[in-house]
Amino acid sequence: MKNFHSNSLVSCAGFLATIKKKPFVKFPSILLSQRIMATNTKNSSDNKQLFEKSDRIAHFKQDVWSIFTPLAQQLKAANLGQGFMDFPPPDFIIEAATRAINNRNDHQYSHPKGRVNLKSALAKSYSPLFNRTLDPDLEILPTAGANEGLYAIFAAFVNPGDEVILIEPFFDQYIANITMNGGVPVFVPLRPQGDTNKIMSSKDWKLDINELRSKLTSKSKIIVFNTPHNPVGKVFSIEEMAEINKLAEEFNLIIISDEVYDRLYYEPDVHERIANLPGAWERTITVGSGGKTFGTTGWRIGWLIGPKHLIGAALSAQTRIVFCVNTPLQESLAIAFDLAEKHDYFKNMIEEYTRRREKLMKALTDIGLPYTIPQGSYFILANTAKVKVPENYPYPDVILQRPRDFKVCYWMAKEIGVVAIPPSEFYCEENAHLAENFIRLAFCKTDKTLDEAAKNLQKLKKYIEK
Amino acid sequence: MKNFHSNSLVSCAGFLATIKKKPFVKFPSILLSQRIMATNTKNSSDNKQLFEKSDRIAHFKQDVWSIFTPLAQQLKAANLGQGFMDFPPPDFIIEAATRAINNRNDHQYSHPKGRVNLKSALAKSYSPLFNRTLDPDLEILPTAGANEGLYAIFAAFVNPGDEVILIEPFFDQYIANITMNGGVPVFVPLRPQGDTNKIMSSKDWKLDINELRSKLTSKSKIIVFNTPHNPVGKVFSIEEMAEINKLAEEFNLIIISDEVYDRLYYEPDVHERIANLPGAWERTITVGSGGKTFGTTGWRIGWLIGPKHLIGAALSAQTRIVFCVNTPLQESLAIAFDLAEKHDYFKNMIEEYTRRREKLMKALTDIGLPYTIPQGSYFILANTAKVKVPENYPYPDVILQRPRDFKVCYWMAKEIGVVAIPPSEFYCEENAHLAENFIRLAFCKTDKTLDEAAKNLQKLKKYIEK
Ligand SMILES: Cc1ncc(COP(=O)(O)O)c(C=O)c1O
Ligand SMILES: Cc1ncc(COP(=O)(O)O)c(C=O)c1O
Repeated sequence: MKNFHSNSLVSCAGFLATIKKKPFVKFPSILLSQRIMATNTKNSSDNKQLFEKSDRIAHFKQDVWSIFTPLAQQLKAANLGQGFMDFPPPDFIIEAATRAINNRNDHQYSHPKGRVNLKSALAKSYSPLFNRTLDPDLEILPTAGANEGLYAIFAAFVNPGDEVILIEPFFDQYIANITMNGGVPVFVPLRPQGDTNKIMSSKDWKLDINELRSKLTSKSKIIVFNTPHNPVGKVFSIEEMAEINKLAEEFNLIIISDEVYDRLYYEPDVHERIANLPGAWERTITVGSGGKTFGTTGWRIGWLIGPKHLIGAALSAQTRIVFCVNTPLQESLAIAFDLAEKHDYFKNMIEEYTRRREKLMKALTDIGLPYTIPQGSYFILANTAKVKVPENYPYPDVILQRPRDFKVCYWMAKEIGVVAIPPSEFYCEENAHLAENFIRLAFCKTDKTLDEAAKNLQKLKKYIEK
Repeated sequence: MKNFHSNSLVSCAGFLATIKKKPFVKFPSILLSQRIMATNTKNSSDNKQLFEKSDRIAHFKQDVWSIFTPLAQQLKAANLGQGFMDFPPPDFIIEAATRAINNRNDHQYSHPKGRVNLKSALAKSYSPLFNRTLDPDLEILPTAGANEGLYAIFAAFVNPGDEVILIEPFFDQYIANITMNGGVPVFVPLRPQGDTNKIMSSKDWKLDINELRSKLTSKSKIIVFNTPHNPVGKVFSIEEMAEINKLAEEFNLIIISDEVYDRLYYEPDVHERIANLPGAWERTITVGSGGKTFGTTGWRIGWLIGPKHLIGAALSAQTRIVFCVNTPLQESLAIAFDLAEKHDYFKNMIEEYTRRREKLMKALTDIGLPYTIPQGSYFILANTAKVKVPENYPYPDVILQRPRDFKVCYWMAKEIGVVAIPPSEFYCEENAHLAENFIRLAFCKTDKTLDEAAKNLQKLKKYIEK
């Protein structure tokens, strides 16, 4: 068990060690009689060792959210950390849910395939976006959040040793979702082009397609692709997607296209879907999120869209993991999609987020902190290379062991009053240095929070080198 | 892949084959160039083969629910099949949910540990039942249904090859929850004592403790224990639990005590908790279900109660599987627990279910079909040994390949107008014959459904041998 207490969650090398470790190591040299003796001591800390965690979770270290979200609450700092809204969903969403809850007959198990009403609503909303008539029965699967949908896909397709390609920075849950199913993550970073000490566009973060190719082997099974991108804000162009699709075809990869921010982009119609490229449909599962779409991250409903041979396998896995997704909120979401059209919701949402984005960009420009202008999603990466964080600041252990960006974020929370997320959490250990100068700021926040953040950020000015 | 298309889901031998199969068999002899050629044919049925399912799901066969629930709908038969209520939850539950939904600030991510309000409500309700002051923060974990809670426990503790003891008949999801995590289920049947052709008590179904002992090895890691029991209705006595606990101690097993029917029993105070036995707390996770407790199986909220070293590990796994449980229905359940007391809900529920149980028992007595009187839960096992099902009935393939009880249930659905569940689904293949004379009838149903079932069951009389 010792091997797994190390900080290896996002260590490329760490994973390989985990995966390659032989599985049958429980009580290798302890005889049954000794185990009985050990038990007889009835000491709870003994038991803790004896009720050994599985290898798949024993190496998990504390996640970034459970460090910074409580810190934000404790310090009452302006929280631009975790990507949830600090404002309520629109009234029509509460209305939709109230209506659904009061359908007294919609409180029992759903079919594992999902509610007919939600699947129809999704088919109606997404068929035009996929340029095809989606079959609600076989090509759409509601999930218990996008996150559980991702887990189910890996459970459905990954055998121990199969490789899954991740583009850095990545949504941190991918890693555990893959390794818990015995998969081996393989990493390729986006590389910012030009001077990152100036304001730049998320377009300037590029995937080197030859670097990607160099990572593909006969064990590669899946590539995870995320657009609009968390945390860079990049919206991949058709040309970039075509290159990825070509490699996927050549190596016969399944493409997971994580498009949970598909309704959030800041240039007209810039978001395209890789599933729509020639030949891509058959190999692509597109992942969506009701939480991101309707400002209800706590409803835990997402969806998968793809060809029936991929959706069917994800369904098989999901049925055994959660059995089915909660019924009342599936029905709520079905109503929400209907009402969204009436309220011109998606257009309004883009306008509101555009305003929030401007506010945060202005705050950063005002203090002279360079950043990446996001084309989509609701995050901004700011570059803190020029910030002189005082030496010998008293960091707690959980921060001390981590790269520079953890220290900057911790110090900023305490001294500046703004909580950001250190993006090295979204890189493997080997590549974490690529992130150490950045911090991630979320703008899915009220004007009040954003204004307070802007005010507090003024305090940072004196630490920024000219 | 061929190996896994067989009907091996509940085959003891089948599992072992699955588990022992070497993991690295993807494209063993296919060179990369050949894979590229194969892809170039762009034939979707080719792709289906190439996007090979993982070994952990490829052998799944059609589950019993997706055979019999649609059949019930199609035939408009009296559905005593799947264990969900065909009546709405009480008004105060709808009220609780409406209130929670209208807390506009309770729609975002919860902490993975669960809502403080729900955990407090659970601690308040369960502390007296566990004879201890439960720590809501560390000893209670809300889950996305009891089912996902079970999955998370296996993910947290089972390494490939670890053995998990199941008592037959068992809740069918256990199997996949275990094998998806590389565990090996090991089976010990309850054995009915006395003449099963007479009316008997669920007390008469006994676990042979020596048979259980004979199945334990140094690889045994967990025993799953279910009381009140689905489908037998047995409520284990303290003496029976003490024997199990003693073996668990001797072999240092984790005990999963599945008590989703803990509020449903028909003899005063008969339900006891194995976690309360001397020394058992440290090794036991008790599983509960909001769906079973409040007649809301579609809310997908359950909970785990146990010592912090076990709950903490389950939390680690769950955080990566679903991230967190849905917020509004956690809050609803917190309110529901409060209101339940005011409405004397748990007492009333037992009275209502007692009435439903009597109704179904009378219907069976009337036609002379022997059965097991359940002490708890909401199922009755009836013995169909004396039923002469017509020879050469036209069964579909999915039924033909299965044991006698599948045929009886299919025929009854079509010809008698009553849907029951074949309990051999809850046995491993080797022991399925123990179930072939039984059918499972659920009485979590309206008077209307139960009366209709009683009426239709009259048609069975002429097929029953005197
Ligand atoms: C890229 C990405 N994918 C998936 C998710 C998970 O979405 P959900 O809340 O629906 O599980 C997130 C949440 O932050 C995300 O940023
Ligand atoms: C014994 C047993 N355990 C667990 C469950 C699952 O409960 P939930 O609906 O909360 O997932 C069931 C459901 O039928 C059950 O019978």
